[in-house]
Amino acid sequence: MRPSKRAADELRAVTLERGVSKHAEGSCLVKFGDTHVLCTASLEERVPPWLRGQNRGWVTAEYGMLPRATGDRMRREASAGKQSGRTQEIQRLIGRSLRAVVNLEALGENQITVDCDVIQADGGTRTASITGAWVALRDCIEWMKARDMVSGEVLKDHIAAISCGIYEGAPVLDLDYAEDSTAETDANFVLTGSGGIVEIQGTAEGAPFSEEEFGKLMGLAKLGIGKLVDLQKMAIL
Amino acid sequence: MRPSKRAADELRAVTLERGVSKHAEGSCLVKFGDTHVLCTASLEERVPPWLRGQNRGWVTAEYGMLPRATGDRMRREASAGKQSGRTQEIQRLIGRSLRAVVNLEALGENQITVDCDVIQADGGTRTASITGAWVALRDCIEWMKARDMVSGEVLKDHIAAISCGIYEGAPVLDLDYAEDSTAETDANFVLTGSGGIVEIQGTAEGAPFSEEEFGKLMGLAKLGIGKLVDLQKMAIL
Amino acid sequence: MRPSKRAADELRAVTLERGVSKHAEGSCLVKFGDTHVLCTASLEERVPPWLRGQNRGWVTAEYGMLPRATGDRMRREASAGKQSGRTQEIQRLIGRSLRAVVNLEALGENQITVDCDVIQADGGTRTASITGAWVALRDCIEWMKARDMVSGEVLKDHIAAISCGIYEGAPVLDLDYAEDSTAETDANFVLTGSGGIVEIQGTAEGAPFSEEEFGKLMGLAKLGIGKLVDLQKMAIL
Amino acid sequence: MRPSKRAADELRAVTLERGVSKHAEGSCLVKFGDTHVLCTASLEERVPPWLRGQNRGWVTAEYGMLPRATGDRMRREASAGKQSGRTQEIQRLIGRSLRAVVNLEALGENQITVDCDVIQADGGTRTASITGAWVALRDCIEWMKARDMVSGEVLKDHIAAISCGIYEGAPVLDLDYAEDSTAETDANFVLTGSGGIVEIQGTAEGAPFSEEEFGKLMGLAKLGIGKLVDLQKMAIL
Amino acid sequence: MRPSKRAADELRAVTLERGVSKHAEGSCLVKFGDTHVLCTASLEERVPPWLRGQNRGWVTAEYGMLPRATGDRMRREASAGKQSGRTQEIQRLIGRSLRAVVNLEALGENQITVDCDVIQADGGTRTASITGAWVALRDCIEWMKARDMVSGEVLKDHIAAISCGIYEGAPVLDLDYAEDSTAETDANFVLTGSGGIVEIQGTAEGAPFSEEEFGKLMGLAKLGIGKLVDLQKMAIL
Amino acid sequence: MRPSKRAADELRAVTLERGVSKHAEGSCLVKFGDTHVLCTASLEERVPPWLRGQNRGWVTAEYGMLPRATGDRMRREASAGKQSGRTQEIQRLIGRSLRAVVNLEALGENQITVDCDVIQADGGTRTASITGAWVALRDCIEWMKARDMVSGEVLKDHIAAISCGIYEGAPVLDLDYAEDSTAETDANFVLTGSGGIVEIQGTAEGAPFSEEEFGKLMGLAKLGIGKLVDLQKMAIL
Repeated sequence: MRPSKRAADELRAVTLERGVSKHAEGSCLVKFGDTHVLCTASLEERVPPWLRGQNRGWVTAEYGMLPRATGDRMRREASAGKQSGRTQEIQRLIGRSLRAVVNLEALGENQITVDCDVIQADGGTRTASITGAWVALRDCIEWMKARDMVSGEVLKDHIAAISCGIYEGAPVLDLDYAEDSTAETDANFVLTGSGGIVEIQGTAEGAPFSEEEFGKLMGLAKLGIGKLVDLQKMAIL
Repeated sequence: MRPSKRAADELRAVTLERGVSKHAEGSCLVKFGDTHVLCTASLEERVPPWLRGQNRGWVTAEYGMLPRATGDRMRREASAGKQSGRTQEIQRLIGRSLRAVVNLEALGENQITVDCDVIQADGGTRTASITGAWVALRDCIEWMKARDMVSGEVLKDHIAAISCGIYEGAPVLDLDYAEDSTAETDANFVLTGSGGIVEIQGTAEGAPFSEEEFGKLMGLAKLGIGKLVDLQKMAIL
Repeated sequence: MRPSKRAADELRAVTLERGVSKHAEGSCLVKFGDTHVLCTASLEERVPPWLRGQNRGWVTAEYGMLPRATGDRMRREASAGKQSGRTQEIQRLIGRSLRAVVNLEALGENQITVDCDVIQADGGTRTASITGAWVALRDCIEWMKARDMVSGEVLKDHIAAISCGIYEGAPVLDLDYAEDSTAETDANFVLTGSGGIVEIQGTAEGAPFSEEEFGKLMGLAKLGIGKLVDLQKMAIL
Repeated sequence: MRPSKRAADELRAVTLERGVSKHAEGSCLVKFGDTHVLCTASLEERVPPWLRGQNRGWVTAEYGMLPRATGDRMRREASAGKQSGRTQEIQRLIGRSLRAVVNLEALGENQITVDCDVIQADGGTRTASITGAWVALRDCIEWMKARDMVSGEVLKDHIAAISCGIYEGAPVLDLDYAEDSTAETDANFVLTGSGGIVEIQGTAEGAPFSEEEFGKLMGLAKLGIGKLVDLQKMAIL
Repeated sequence: MRPSKRAADELRAVTLERGVSKHAEGSCLVKFGDTHVLCTASLEERVPPWLRGQNRGWVTAEYGMLPRATGDRMRREASAGKQSGRTQEIQRLIGRSLRAVVNLEALGENQITVDCDVIQADGGTRTASITGAWVALRDCIEWMKARDMVSGEVLKDHIAAISCGIYEGAPVLDLDYAEDSTAETDANFVLTGSGGIVEIQGTAEGAPFSEEEFGKLMGLAKLGIGKLVDLQKMAIL
Repeated sequence: MRPSKRAADELRAVTLERGVSKHAEGSCLVKFGDTHVLCTASLEERVPPWLRGQNRGWVTAEYGMLPRATGDRMRREASAGKQSGRTQEIQRLIGRSLRAVVNLEALGENQITVDCDVIQADGGTRTASITGAWVALRDCIEWMKARDMVSGEVLKDHIAAISCGIYEGAPVLDLDYAEDSTAETDANFVLTGSGGIVEIQGTAEGAPFSEEEFGKLMGLAKLGIGKLVDLQKMAIL
């Protein structure tokens, strides 16, 4: 039995609320249960120095957590003077995942930065971030289309992410904090709307896991991401 | 005529929503119109090194802005590796203001950190922060009282803040961004519930101002803060 | 009775010594009693990036304290690797105050940086800095005039600053360290030569203060700044 | 055809040279072809603050690259003042991988830090690091055993790592730089000697990949890691 | 002919003014011509962590330059966020030089930090710093003696420093900036009052120099330092 | 008797191995006994901003130590976030020494950065670095010559360095760590192939030393550097 009483293949309640920022070109407040992440997409009509003059754009991401998003207050990274390794690892993952479904040539010499700020954390902040970031990114691209800033299809597919893990010996979908902190194995999957794999990260927290177990986690992930992509489609109707 | 059509002595729509954080001992989402600040109060049962062994507590504040809280995306301070002078100035002000109404002896050897994170900015983030921070702080102290962690009156009074300015020649209350960016004079007032002055900061952005003008700004501030304190009282009913 | 035996409306001995730096375009060693600040104005024939091409100049300030300017040695900020919030707050104040009396268009695309370095501290370092910085700035502008680098009136007025406070229940002018560290209320005023207000910062260190008390502090400040402006005029004769 | 003419399932020439450091308790110079990494294991008889008093030890890793380990000189991280996100990601991975085969209770209150410094890079630095780090770690633990500092089995199994990828449409083992920079998919596998999975990281650099493709990569990885573990066994004979 | 018209073996006008700081336990404003350095000695009744419990004290030094001490304004190190290599090199030299004449055992578990802050620079700031630092250090030790904080002889000898160089082919003593910036060879000597050598640093700025030339520089240095030690003796009469 | 049984004027076994890096334009692994330094010379076809447009090149150096190059593991500078004063002092010395024998005009607008990374330390890392850096630099310049990137003689002479010291009362050549940590006096000499002096650094670690003692150290240095230059000549045959 999971602490949340969910079935093994059951997502938390997921909501994707668009247009939550007065200023950003695209935005989405994504909730995976008690995990709440504000995603904003910001357009800049310039690209990083190493990309100049190539008629291509760039999509990048930054990730942060409010100090009291967690059970115990964490030190503010701006005050500590640097981002933790975990923060950098997550924001690199979000950026890579988004770029996998963007046609950078079609974007022109523009950069979109998606900020994913965790307002409240209860496990799965990186997967919620990717899932919500796609919505913010999509609305930013729509904003550009409405202003004839891009032509052709910039966004090639949906992208969404979910965690799976082995909790008390059983494979389960969408770990919350109570599960995540005791799971033997934790895996994050990033898949496109058409089912292509973009990123897999599996880690044995306790004992190593087998190929068979990993196969079951991937099965759950495909199921869950299918549902997340459906929710993205409904959100942008 | 103000851009927002408000009367000269009219506040923006102000809301104070309590209990918005699953984890924090006290929290408040404060809105002054389109300025939205999430305030969380975090209790730690220890004090800074310089205060140890004195049977007194401490209240401090940190302030941050999400990168796209503003019209143009600003660089994330955690990524820049340091907090700006403006950020430090504001968080020092919030901390001083809160301490002015706290009986630190009654708090015992505990520290409360109030984080004020600007989710969306439209002028007046520091005044909204102080006004909301009081609510978060108050709920944190109530949380302690319910657990017999403090005795006696820890919180001596309300504290709230408002900005006033001279906009197109006329003194107005509660500047929004459109006014703030063109106001000739900008002043922030921090007052207690009983009308005592805790902090005054007045700055001539353009031409110097006169003592008479300053008197009018203070009159507006007293009016506005009276209303904010009423809203605080209603919020904690 | 004040520790220094001064009358309530009496300044410390103030001196403004010009031309103390072999290299700087303008310089002034200002003393407010035992508070000694070396102010140098440095001209650069370029402006910050965000101001380029606008035919306007810029005036900015930096503030520092020698490690043993104070009773106990403080950590050197260069060694700590960052400037404190207090330092940044003060240098922003000095810069704003100076710009309030400078015609930036008349300055052309030049930047003047005024460094205020506290050689010895005994309270009131920011007010002494502003008062002396005006003299250094003025001599730098004269230096430019003598080389036909500017035309028209660059400097619109005098600017000077003083602190006032409520010490043992009584309003007093120009707090020294002994008073500053125990004053109930501390306020800094920055006024122009013609009496216009440029900046007011009032803080209740203990109990909140009343509007009436604040009025008395402002009265003292106007008196004191009048004297400081007279001293500036004598210094530049 | 691979640039190196290797068969699809062929490792580069791998060597593991022990005892290369005069000072370290354990050391190994590992070469995967032209990728050379110096691994040193350093023993400290203390643990991080958060682990004190728990009768358990800790194993951690740091990773670095000499500035000219690569084709173009990279900026020295010590001079830049911070470690890149990539560096932090890799050193966290190495540490997690090693801890997966260490009995931390049996280690006692000791910390072993394994430094993996890339002397020359030609792709696969993180997998070479993990494979060599195990040898250095093992010799450090032997050093402790010889001094009766640990009892019982500290090291539970071998650990080794290899990259696989899809290069010009075909799954290949152990990517070198020429392959890595153009591969469509890149995956790193960390497995124990008994075949348990400790970490999987798969990333689509270009088009998303399928579950079937991923299965082929895992098959190659199991083959390659089997050979690496054999080489580790021969190295410590 | 030297730009300053000085003879080859002639020092600039040197003054050592004691007691210039209201707060420091020892202080000296040293002038070597237009090079002015404020030296303050600060006593702390504790030692660095690595020296605790050894019944020995420590003497250390920090060095800084006001931003406009030089002909062109330099960036403030506190604002840049780090001390330059040159700064660190100089402060390490000053500290080593002072420790060479201090009996650290006799100092007890106390630390003296000598801050050398260059108010105005015209070449030779490090040699002026060492020469003035000795005076500040000596007065700090006298301050301790007067309070029975030390017993026995803490200060074993005088220490002073001077630069020599080869300027337009001729060996000269005490280089000023005009000479220093074009000298072919620049050497700094730190000697005790009894003529022992504590530190020699000789650098060929242009062509390498010969042993014979170096011998002449050392001869000048011994002459000059003899005079500096005489001035120190007169200063402390 | 020296700990290593060497005669007073005997170098450690010195080897200079060229071409050790697959990527660098010039490289040398230098060993002075158990002190091993990897020197790589990297060519960039640009110069620092302050040198642009002057038809001159630049040679600079960076120095680093692997964390476990030493008997106790030292903190990684990249992780600490800054280079120590010692590191900066050494890399400045290496750069100055190399530039003393380079004709920067003949180099054209190119920069060569020589990285000296200490793989294993046993005293004398800076002198080994300079000696090996010359070989790496020379091969880089040969690389340029072979591509007609430079004309005329870029390299004017050999440069090499050695330490000498007074160990247990006797002057000895080429201190290893056991000697260096207890030597009364430590001096580093940097000389050209033709015997010109480029840099002398002599420091009394304990009692001051005399001019006569210093003369003996210089005599040993000239002998040792003569041998090092012979080894450089043999290495590049």
